[in-house]
Amino acid sequence: MSEIKEIEGGILAAEGYCAASMCVGVKPNATKRDLTMIKSEMPATVVGVFTRNKVKAAPVKWDMEVVAHGLASAVVVNTGIANAATGKQGLENCKIEAEAVAEALGVSEKEVLVGSTGVIGPQLPMDKITGGIKELAGKLVSAKDGADVAKAEAHEAALAIMTTDTQPKEIAVSFEINGVTCKIGAMCKGSGMIHPNMGTMLGYLLSDLSIDHELAQKLLRAVVERTFNMVSVDGDTSTNDTVLWLCNGLSGNEKITAATLGISLDDIDESGDTDMSTLGNEAYRTLYRALYTVCLYLAKNIAKDGEGATRLFTAKVIGAPDYETAKTLAKSVITSSLTKAAIYGRDANCGRIFCAMGYSGAEFDPDKVDITMSSKEGSITMIEQGMLPEFSEEEALKILTPDEITAVCDLHAGSFEAEAWGCDLTHEYVTINADYRS
Amino acid sequence: MSEIKEIEGGILAAEGYCAASMCVGVKPNATKRDLTMIKSEMPATVVGVFTRNKVKAAPVKWDMEVVAHGLASAVVVNTGIANAATGKQGLENCKIEAEAVAEALGVSEKEVLVGSTGVIGPQLPMDKITGGIKELAGKLVSAKDGADVAKAEAHEAALAIMTTDTQPKEIAVSFEINGVTCKIGAMCKGSGMIHPNMGTMLGYLLSDLSIDHELAQKLLRAVVERTFNMVSVDGDTSTNDTVLWLCNGLSGNEKITAATLGISLDDIDESGDTDMSTLGNEAYRTLYRALYTVCLYLAKNIAKDGEGATRLFTAKVIGAPDYETAKTLAKSVITSSLTKAAIYGRDANCGRIFCAMGYSGAEFDPDKVDITMSSKEGSITMIEQGMLPEFSEEEALKILTPDEITAVCDLHAGSFEAEAWGCDLTHEYVTINADYRS
Repeated sequence: MSEIKEIEGGILAAEGYCAASMCVGVKPNATKRDLTMIKSEMPATVVGVFTRNKVKAAPVKWDMEVVAHGLASAVVVNTGIANAATGKQGLENCKIEAEAVAEALGVSEKEVLVGSTGVIGPQLPMDKITGGIKELAGKLVSAKDGADVAKAEAHEAALAIMTTDTQPKEIAVSFEINGVTCKIGAMCKGSGMIHPNMGTMLGYLLSDLSIDHELAQKLLRAVVERTFNMVSVDGDTSTNDTVLWLCNGLSGNEKITAATLGISLDDIDESGDTDMSTLGNEAYRTLYRALYTVCLYLAKNIAKDGEGATRLFTAKVIGAPDYETAKTLAKSVITSSLTKAAIYGRDANCGRIFCAMGYSGAEFDPDKVDITMSSKEGSITMIEQGMLPEFSEEEALKILTPDEITAVCDLHAGSFEAEAWGCDLTHEYVTINADYRS
Repeated sequence: MSEIKEIEGGILAAEGYCAASMCVGVKPNATKRDLTMIKSEMPATVVGVFTRNKVKAAPVKWDMEVVAHGLASAVVVNTGIANAATGKQGLENCKIEAEAVAEALGVSEKEVLVGSTGVIGPQLPMDKITGGIKELAGKLVSAKDGADVAKAEAHEAALAIMTTDTQPKEIAVSFEINGVTCKIGAMCKGSGMIHPNMGTMLGYLLSDLSIDHELAQKLLRAVVERTFNMVSVDGDTSTNDTVLWLCNGLSGNEKITAATLGISLDDIDESGDTDMSTLGNEAYRTLYRALYTVCLYLAKNIAKDGEGATRLFTAKVIGAPDYETAKTLAKSVITSSLTKAAIYGRDANCGRIFCAMGYSGAEFDPDKVDITMSSKEGSITMIEQGMLPEFSEEEALKILTPDEITAVCDLHAGSFEAEAWGCDLTHEYVTINADYRS
């Protein structure tokens, strides 16, 4: 496997992308940038993973069509209003947006992705948005304007798509596929795994790879299952969740197909239940690792930046008889409100973790379970063979104080493992969500 | 159907039961009563419904054996320590407790039910508990000591089994079966649908009915599915959850069997998915309604008294194609942290309810959904055919202010309906659970 290097430049790190953002005032009196546009020099192969919620926001429906069509030339994203529960008018507004972008950039409207995040219900202020689109078309910045200028604009875009996020989330990596340097630049927003009001999680991966559409779609879904789908802030699942991966081919690599990776398409388990990091040839393993690195970084940062959160909380289940069991248990632990409140309180309360395992639905023998809490301050076993051993409360408090805490749950029943990421449940979460709309 | 009359007397309302409670100091420095004993004059037919959590507390395992045996003569319950994650010693302590009760009351140890609720992990202080059992045996009070004395002692018992509950939960009803007056007295504790630390929900129904064991077991399970199992405070499920129904036959009714109710045992759907209120003859309908009334009252009061809660929040799904769909949607709505936080904030935010329906897994057409919020102040439609209509924020705030709020979600797809009960998510919930043990 070739090395995966973390590089600067965020979403403008890969070849052939430009971006700009501005404040158009989607919400009255807004001063923060709330409209972002991205353009690819060449139509890019596009794949996506979307919310499984039955209630899908209009932009999700629109983007699913674009992904089915297979090519994207531009993206436009607004914050403030989610364009969800907006009926036919909502879908019509997606079309108007796409037409405005198509006209401003000289691309096909069928190749324009639209994204929205914010309050459910209201219609978008289309005059402001189409006006903004025209203005942004003249302001697009790329690496050709200088690395520092591009890096700054990419950072502004990561800020502009934020809602209740407190930190922008961006990353870029470079790696070699058969001697050709390729890059993926990415950003996302999301600070609850979902907010019906917020349309939570929007992720954009912009790469200069040339890759087969079906292969890219399957790879993205499999990686999302092991990264974004292993994160929970509050157990809810949004109407707007979207991850899109664009591949414009401008790195000049030979088009990647299943054959060039030494696999067949059927080898890719889109459920995420199979460990796919070790399949295929070196090119496969490099590509998989690059995609996984980007998605994992963004996913963990969503968990860490959960609404009101003060701690990243990782549940790692080991010694499981299969991956499914490990995954079910890890997700149950990070989703438990009681566990999350205990992590907030630095309360050495592994009974809650043990209990959340118990009601997960997974099969395991409680009498064999060990649970160890760890952080940079050390580690301490708090459940041993299903029972509470003696331990120092003082030591436990020290270990539970840092801002990244991991619970390792060992089933002693096999060699499979899974990790899931969440955050603590705080007073601030309640404050944010008791009156989000105001 | 004969009338179901609400009467006074709590758990001592039915014939042939006596009870007492005291403070033995399960937790050091405790001043509140923490040990309760109940005795039935005659061995009672006993049935029960227990937690489905894989991690079962020792008293749950013990009581499952007693229920399988079929007869109970006494109950002993402590708060402070849950006797969960306590291994073989924990089970041995259940036996020691039962033996102490058996000796003190002259009953068989196999007919002694034990209950514990409190912190997970520590072993029970057996000297204090067995000492308390001896003392309580001399203090038992029944209706023979006077209705007011019995009523007061029953109330003390309902207080003594509380943990983070703010209100005792007790009810008693009388009804006629074929001309014979029968009674059920009941109490429960629980202020989160579950607290791994708390062993949440303990419910005791004491009746003077004579009834077939298998019939009673099936009826209780079916009713629990439609009452206690439709409540959620925080989505967690305890290691200790237990509902027990004792029937000592002292009302003098002819033994109730499926035949005397005009049904067959197979008619009883223990999943709760069939409406069973209209089966059988008048005796059946009276008995079902009495049991349902008691369980529903206790369940709703658990929701209302959820940790830190300020509001009872009911989700009623109507117009569903089947009960299963209605149930799944109603439970998803009351479990959503975002919805619960909005109810706390009196935020007219039906997008969150709509979204929680969307990710429930149930099939429905979002474009047909209406959602109406109601309280004693009136009602207001906030989602209409899947979209947000114009409404007065002022009016909405008025309607969302009382302490009982209902969301009615109409699917317009059939005639089935289901109700579920929860509460709001408050700052106080986080405070309680961030440091429960101290």
